[in-house]
Amino acid sequence: MYDLLITGGHLLTMAGDGVGFVENGAVAIEGRRIVAVGPRAAIEANDQSRRTIDATDRLVMPGLIDAHMHSAATLARGLAQEVETWMGSAYGPLIRHATDDDAHLWTSLALMEGIAAGTTTFGDYEAPMERLVRLHLQAGIRAVVCQGVTEIDWNQRERWIEQGWRPGEPAILDPMVGERSLAEELALFDRWNGADDGRVRVVLGPIAADMVSESLLLRCQAEARARGTSIHLHVAQDPRENNATLRRAGLRAIPYLDAIGLLAPETIAVHLSTATPDEVRLVAAKTGRMTCCSNSIGIIDGVVPPARLFADSGGAVALGSDQAAGNNSHNVFAEMRATAMFAKIIAGSPLPLPAWQVLRMATIDGAHVLGIDQRVGSLEEGKDADLILLDLTRPPLAPVVLRPARNLVANLVYGETGANVRLSMVAGQVIYEDGTFTHLDRDAIMAEVNEAVGRFETAACADPAIGKLPIVALTDAGLI
Amino acid sequence: MYDLLITGGHLLTMAGDGVGFVENGAVAIEGRRIVAVGPRAAIEANDQSRRTIDATDRLVMPGLIDAHMHSAATLARGLAQEVETWMGSAYGPLIRHATDDDAHLWTSLALMEGIAAGTTTFGDYEAPMERLVRLHLQAGIRAVVCQGVTEIDWNQRERWIEQGWRPGEPAILDPMVGERSLAEELALFDRWNGADDGRVRVVLGPIAADMVSESLLLRCQAEARARGTSIHLHVAQDPRENNATLRRAGLRAIPYLDAIGLLAPETIAVHLSTATPDEVRLVAAKTGRMTCCSNSIGIIDGVVPPARLFADSGGAVALGSDQAAGNNSHNVFAEMRATAMFAKIIAGSPLPLPAWQVLRMATIDGAHVLGIDQRVGSLEEGKDADLILLDLTRPPLAPVVLRPARNLVANLVYGETGANVRLSMVAGQVIYEDGTFTHLDRDAIMAEVNEAVGRFETAACADPAIGKLPIVALTDAGLI
Repeated sequence: MYDLLITGGHLLTMAGDGVGFVENGAVAIEGRRIVAVGPRAAIEANDQSRRTIDATDRLVMPGLIDAHMHSAATLARGLAQEVETWMGSAYGPLIRHATDDDAHLWTSLALMEGIAAGTTTFGDYEAPMERLVRLHLQAGIRAVVCQGVTEIDWNQRERWIEQGWRPGEPAILDPMVGERSLAEELALFDRWNGADDGRVRVVLGPIAADMVSESLLLRCQAEARARGTSIHLHVAQDPRENNATLRRAGLRAIPYLDAIGLLAPETIAVHLSTATPDEVRLVAAKTGRMTCCSNSIGIIDGVVPPARLFADSGGAVALGSDQAAGNNSHNVFAEMRATAMFAKIIAGSPLPLPAWQVLRMATIDGAHVLGIDQRVGSLEEGKDADLILLDLTRPPLAPVVLRPARNLVANLVYGETGANVRLSMVAGQVIYEDGTFTHLDRDAIMAEVNEAVGRFETAACADPAIGKLPIVALTDAGLI
Repeated sequence: MYDLLITGGHLLTMAGDGVGFVENGAVAIEGRRIVAVGPRAAIEANDQSRRTIDATDRLVMPGLIDAHMHSAATLARGLAQEVETWMGSAYGPLIRHATDDDAHLWTSLALMEGIAAGTTTFGDYEAPMERLVRLHLQAGIRAVVCQGVTEIDWNQRERWIEQGWRPGEPAILDPMVGERSLAEELALFDRWNGADDGRVRVVLGPIAADMVSESLLLRCQAEARARGTSIHLHVAQDPRENNATLRRAGLRAIPYLDAIGLLAPETIAVHLSTATPDEVRLVAAKTGRMTCCSNSIGIIDGVVPPARLFADSGGAVALGSDQAAGNNSHNVFAEMRATAMFAKIIAGSPLPLPAWQVLRMATIDGAHVLGIDQRVGSLEEGKDADLILLDLTRPPLAPVVLRPARNLVANLVYGETGANVRLSMVAGQVIYEDGTFTHLDRDAIMAEVNEAVGRFETAACADPAIGKLPIVALTDAGLI
């Protein structure tokens, strides 16, 4: 006797090499796990079920994987684009007025946005993480988290300037800061990794080569190996990083990371924004895993991350929404569309990165990059029941044409916005249904969000440095 | 006494040079028209109202303008991308199995998709248009329509081949076909232009220079001038067009159109996909009006239309969703996002085409391109009440930060998908509210759509030529 049968919908199982389409299929679930997947008639003939979800006119597919995000940046959503350097002249000055006490509110917004758009796994990279991981567990999502390991204390910036440091130079590393930071990351791992039958995984996140010394990078790697977990590392994310490693070792970031052995199978390389083609191939060969944040990097830098070349070089690519200050959304459908389209317009051809390949990035390949493909990323017997149902009776998923050719995958990738997601499930638990978050109190969260925005507005308005930002001038000019 | 007061929301009026932001504003409506716009307190002090819409936590802005679409192509949604030549090796062979009897169903899908995503004006370019314009009127939308004037009868293609014509060569023009086509376009104009107080406008649509002879292009222009309407012309849309005008007159398409006087203020130039920078500047100087279809042209050709250069050259740019076979959606939010982002990644900079400029393309500039900016495109006294309300309590529009800088415009352009549209109004009439189309019977339409898809599938499966299409091979391989 199955616990639950989701039956009568079309399936994209993402099993095998393609998209695993099954017409009029069914997914049988016992407890947290999928126990059978296939054509409806075969599955229903197998066994009976305690409960049934009628998936007629629904598409059933694995929940989407947002492999890299900074969830608490939603406070500054829409406040850090269209400037020369988003971090220095927009996000950095603004986010100083955020408080750790409110971080869970911004993360709640990010989770609600992602869940409503079909994301079930969130690769959250945020500090402090302790309270947020409790929120992840409460929200019912799957999370692969880290707090980030850094040797930089940005609060010391004024003191650095007094000592002759100039903005734009590599930040000053402090080994004591690094020690504390690594200790917190390891404590996070020890407390939360594997929580709720593996619904939470903790990885180690040395932030980037310009924020962590060589010795600490190597210690992170050793600690990750000892724990059998991954390294979640921003790689070649900006010119500042190359400048720092050139100073440190006479090498650009990627050759430097390779020289010290950090380009290894446990490393998830995020961004690769400044990587040369040869550097991309090197990372693909050595790590096999990258996360591509097309909308974020496109908006804040005007750069297309090398997802296509990485995939062509044999690596697995995951998609990430990065940060809402300049993305401005946490929506994997938007990442699929952008990733596929950017590849085409850069190549001047409609052929690169076809829809099915990008859909795999958002599901099974994303799971592989995060090291959880034994558990999620496809609808297969034995995997956790992380899945979503989409309404096929509304554009852009309607009309559904099945023969002689199918239009589902193209319409998912190039058309769908997430608005047709009707149900989301993680490990057999419904977390979202028909617009309602079953594990989060939206109204209560929004009331707290509004109060916290007020506190932020008051603090930011009182800061004379903020008044000089370009975005304030645009506001005063009535352009935004 | 106002008929209706929409009050308590934030406004983006799009009046003036920027976005016309009003905090806690109100819009007063009498009959079809806006009679007052401004801060809530001032408007409410002016007069009372028979009816009120509470717009607390809502953004109120002009309805979006989709300036160029082929609405009946939704039948082939998702069936014409990722091939070398979308028209020849996907869309063309498939659409032969569409019937005029069902065209209103595909157009209904396009309208429902657009309305649900905040579009109130549809620039529909479809044949036969007679039944569709009745549908436009029924649906409550504003429409600027044409049927298209062509001298090509594609049904004669087999006969051309017998006579030595080869696929890829310019199609064979038939003056008799052109005469009939122009007569139908003029009849459409005479019957429908100005219907329902101007809610329907008819323009004349010589399809493109390779489909219409010089004499007929000039007659279309003369007829348009005599009627005070626009010419809606695909310009430099593909290499085939340049080949045809090179044969005809030794000139590429744009210099050819200029030489015969077709680049004139009444012409709306659509696409400009193959235009050189000098050609773009020429069209901007001579016509001042272009429509940019970023997603369609990106997906089917891998090309970025020159919206940025056209605007920088002093022309007005409208946005269009083109056709769903390879777009794959009719969603102006998706067009705004793509247009802004493509400009950035082509330039390698976050600065080009800022959000406010793209938002103007989707509203007031779009209205100017279609020649209806005296009536719509901004919220101003005397204009028709074409407006939409969006929910500001949900991501990606939440959180709303108003000071010291505003995040609304960036989040609309880079984040919003249309899913937060709660109400749409055209000429003072609500046409969509909380997911319901007030003038269309969605369930009845979808029942007919399903039957029509079945007829299409049967006909296409019986056509041996279809079986050889690349998209059928991808389907059989399980990749889509």
